[in-house]
Amino acid sequence: MLRIVVAPSGFKESLTAEEVAEAIARGVRRVVPDAAIDMVPLIDGGEGTAAALAQATGGHLVKRVTTGPTGERVRSHFAIMGGPGPRTAVVEMAATAGLRLVPGDERDPGRTTTYGVGELITAALDAGARRILVGCGDSGTSDGGAGALQALGARLQDAGGAEIGRGGAALARLHRIDPAGLDPRLSRTELLVACNPWNLLCGESGVARVFGPQKGATPEQAELLDKALCRWADVLERDVGHGGVDLRTGPGTGASGGLGAGLAALGARLLPRFDVLLDYVDLDRLLARSDLVFTAEGAIDFQTSRGKIPAEVARRAKRYDKPVLALAGTIGTDAHLAYGCGIDAFTSILPAPVGLAEAMSRGAEFLSDGAERALRVLLLGTYLTSVARRRLAQAYG
Amino acid sequence: MLRIVVAPSGFKESLTAEEVAEAIARGVRRVVPDAAIDMVPLIDGGEGTAAALAQATGGHLVKRVTTGPTGERVRSHFAIMGGPGPRTAVVEMAATAGLRLVPGDERDPGRTTTYGVGELITAALDAGARRILVGCGDSGTSDGGAGALQALGARLQDAGGAEIGRGGAALARLHRIDPAGLDPRLSRTELLVACNPWNLLCGESGVARVFGPQKGATPEQAELLDKALCRWADVLERDVGHGGVDLRTGPGTGASGGLGAGLAALGARLLPRFDVLLDYVDLDRLLARSDLVFTAEGAIDFQTSRGKIPAEVARRAKRYDKPVLALAGTIGTDAHLAYGCGIDAFTSILPAPVGLAEAMSRGAEFLSDGAERALRVLLLGTYLTSVARRRLAQAYG
Repeated sequence: MLRIVVAPSGFKESLTAEEVAEAIARGVRRVVPDAAIDMVPLIDGGEGTAAALAQATGGHLVKRVTTGPTGERVRSHFAIMGGPGPRTAVVEMAATAGLRLVPGDERDPGRTTTYGVGELITAALDAGARRILVGCGDSGTSDGGAGALQALGARLQDAGGAEIGRGGAALARLHRIDPAGLDPRLSRTELLVACNPWNLLCGESGVARVFGPQKGATPEQAELLDKALCRWADVLERDVGHGGVDLRTGPGTGASGGLGAGLAALGARLLPRFDVLLDYVDLDRLLARSDLVFTAEGAIDFQTSRGKIPAEVARRAKRYDKPVLALAGTIGTDAHLAYGCGIDAFTSILPAPVGLAEAMSRGAEFLSDGAERALRVLLLGTYLTSVARRRLAQAYG
Repeated sequence: MLRIVVAPSGFKESLTAEEVAEAIARGVRRVVPDAAIDMVPLIDGGEGTAAALAQATGGHLVKRVTTGPTGERVRSHFAIMGGPGPRTAVVEMAATAGLRLVPGDERDPGRTTTYGVGELITAALDAGARRILVGCGDSGTSDGGAGALQALGARLQDAGGAEIGRGGAALARLHRIDPAGLDPRLSRTELLVACNPWNLLCGESGVARVFGPQKGATPEQAELLDKALCRWADVLERDVGHGGVDLRTGPGTGASGGLGAGLAALGARLLPRFDVLLDYVDLDRLLARSDLVFTAEGAIDFQTSRGKIPAEVARRAKRYDKPVLALAGTIGTDAHLAYGCGIDAFTSILPAPVGLAEAMSRGAEFLSDGAERALRVLLLGTYLTSVARRRLAQAYG
C-alpha cells in the first residue's frame, strides 16, 4: 500500500487547505485507489489559523466584534487552544485586519489599521490567556502594528502632543509614544508572533516597497510609507522597547505590514511561523513514513522559496529523503527557484486557457484532475525500463 | 544516454509540428542535457503536409494561384515528391480550401468550395504526375468534393439542366451529374487520399453534423447540409461511380468535408492517413530504439483516440512497449479516453490563467516549460524507492 502525504496550503480566495487536500486526494485515488493518504492541510498564520489550531488541539473559537482595517466594525474571533500547558490564545490578525476585509475601493495601505488586533489581544487577556500566539499573514494593513499598540493603551503623539490618528501614513508625524497606558497584563503574558522571517519592516526589502503595491499603494505612497515606518521604528525603540530585535530589519519585523515590529517592541518573540504552527499537526511523523509527498499553493514563483508552505513541506520532507511534488494554479516568475528548496517537481493544474475567475471557481475540480494527471506522469517514470531509469538518474543527478 | 523520441503534431494556428518538436526538445534538454532526441514532427494530411513530404523525400513545391474556399483567388501550392517510383504529387487540400483561408465572417459551410482542389489536381497532372496523393485535414469546406469534380470537368445540373453552382448547400438541387467532361488523364492516374477513417459523409456521425458547427453552421444549416450531402452521394453513385466504397458511410468518405467521397467516386483509394504518411518519416524505427516518447497536440480530448496524431504515435509506440507522454494546450472533454489508446499520461502546458490568444502567441515558450516540468514529474517516479515503485506499479497495474 502506497503512503502519500498531502500537505497543501489553502488557495487564497478560492479553497481552504482542507478543501485543497481533499481535492488532491480524490485525484490520487482515481489512479491508486487503495493508497494510504495522510491529509495534512497546512496553515501559515493567515486566514484559518485560529480555527485550525482550535480544531487540532481540541480548543474553541471565541467570537468578538472588533474594529476592522478601515475602521468599521467587523465580526471577528480568536481561539483558545485545548491541551496541557498555560492557557493559550490564538489571535489571527487576518480575522480582524485581513486584506479580505478591505473593500477593493478602499485599498489605501497608508490608512488601514491593526487596531482590531489590539482589541483581540485585550479580549484574549480578558479570557485569561497566559500565552498569546499571534498569527500573521493575509494582512490588509501596513501600519507597523501602530493600531494594535493604540488599542492596547499606547498614545501616539505628534509634535504638539495630539494623537496622530490611525494608519501607517500618520506615523510620518509621530513625535513620541506615551506607553504609560499600555495594558499592564501584557508584562506578565507570553506573546509569540508566528511570522515569515523573510518579511522586514524597512528599506529595499521592506514591507512598504514589497507589499505596499499589493495592498493598493502607488510607488510614491510606498516611498512615503517606508519613511513613516522607519520613523515608527526609531520612536518605538526609544520610547517603548525593541525586545532585542532590530525593529527596522530584524527577521519578521515586516510581518503583516509591520505588526511584527510593533509587537516585538512590546516584548513579543518573533518566531518562524512553521516552527510554531507545524508542531500541532504532526507533519514530520507523517512525512517520515511516506512514499511520496504532494504539496500545493495557489502560485509557485520566486516567493515560494522564501518561507511559503510548499518550501517548508519540501524542506522537512528532505530530512527523510522523500520525493516532493507541488501543484499550483499559477506557475509564476522564477518558479524554477523552487527546485532549490527541495521541491523536486511542480506542475500547473490548469487544463486549458481559462480566466482567473473560472480558474478560482473550478479550483477543486482542476486540483483533482491535475493531481490525477501529475500522478500518471510520475507513474510513467516507474514504467521506464531499469536501464533507462539509470540513464536518466545519472543525467539528472 | 537517454533516447527520447519527440513526435508531435503541429498546434493549429499557432506552431508547426517542427516548431512544436523543437520547443519540446529545448525543455527536455534543460533537464537531461545529453539526451539523444529524435525529432519527428508529424503531419496528418492537413496544413504543412505537402511541404513536409517534399522535404522528407527530396522533392519540391510548385506554386499555383487557385480558387480559394470562398471563391477568391489564393496563393497555393502542391508538391512533387523526390525518390524512386512513379512521379508522385502531393495535393494538400488545406493549401487551397483550408479553414484558415475562410475569413471569420464568411464561415458558411454551405457555400465554401473545393474547386481549388480540382485545379491543383489538374496542375499536378500537367506536371506529369502518375500518382497523386491528396492530403485531407484542416478543411474549410463541406461540399463533398463537388467543387473538385466541377474543376475537373464534371457538370452538376439541376432539374432544368442548369449548373447548380458551388458549395454544399447547392447540392440539394442536384438532379444529375454529367461526367463526360472529366479530365481523361484521371483514368490512368493513381489517386490516393490520406484521410481520417473516422470521418463519414452522412448521418449522425456525418461531416455536416460533426464538423458543420466548427465551420460556422447553425443546427438548421447542418441538417440541410446533411440532406444535401446524402443526395450528392446518391447521384454520384448513380452517375459517376463509387470506387467500391459506400459513399455515405464508408471510412474516410467524410474527410475534409466530404472530399473523400467525391474523390472515391472518381476511383481514388481512401487510405488511413498515417499508413500513407508516416512511412516517409521513419517513425517506427526511431520508436523501437527509444526509452521514452513525447507527443503533443493542441488539444487532448474525446477526438484524440479517433485517429489523431498522439493516438497514432501511442499505438505504434506500444508495439515496442514504450512509455508515451502527451503534452497539450487544452485538456478537453473526455480526455481520459486517451488513456485507452496507449497514451500513458498527458498534461497541459499552461502555466497560469491566460486567454486563448496569449496561450497561442506564447505557445513555444509554454511548450518548452511544460515539457521541462512534465519530465521532472516523470523523473520523480524514478526517484521513488524501489519498494514504493513496486507498490505503485501493483496498484496501477
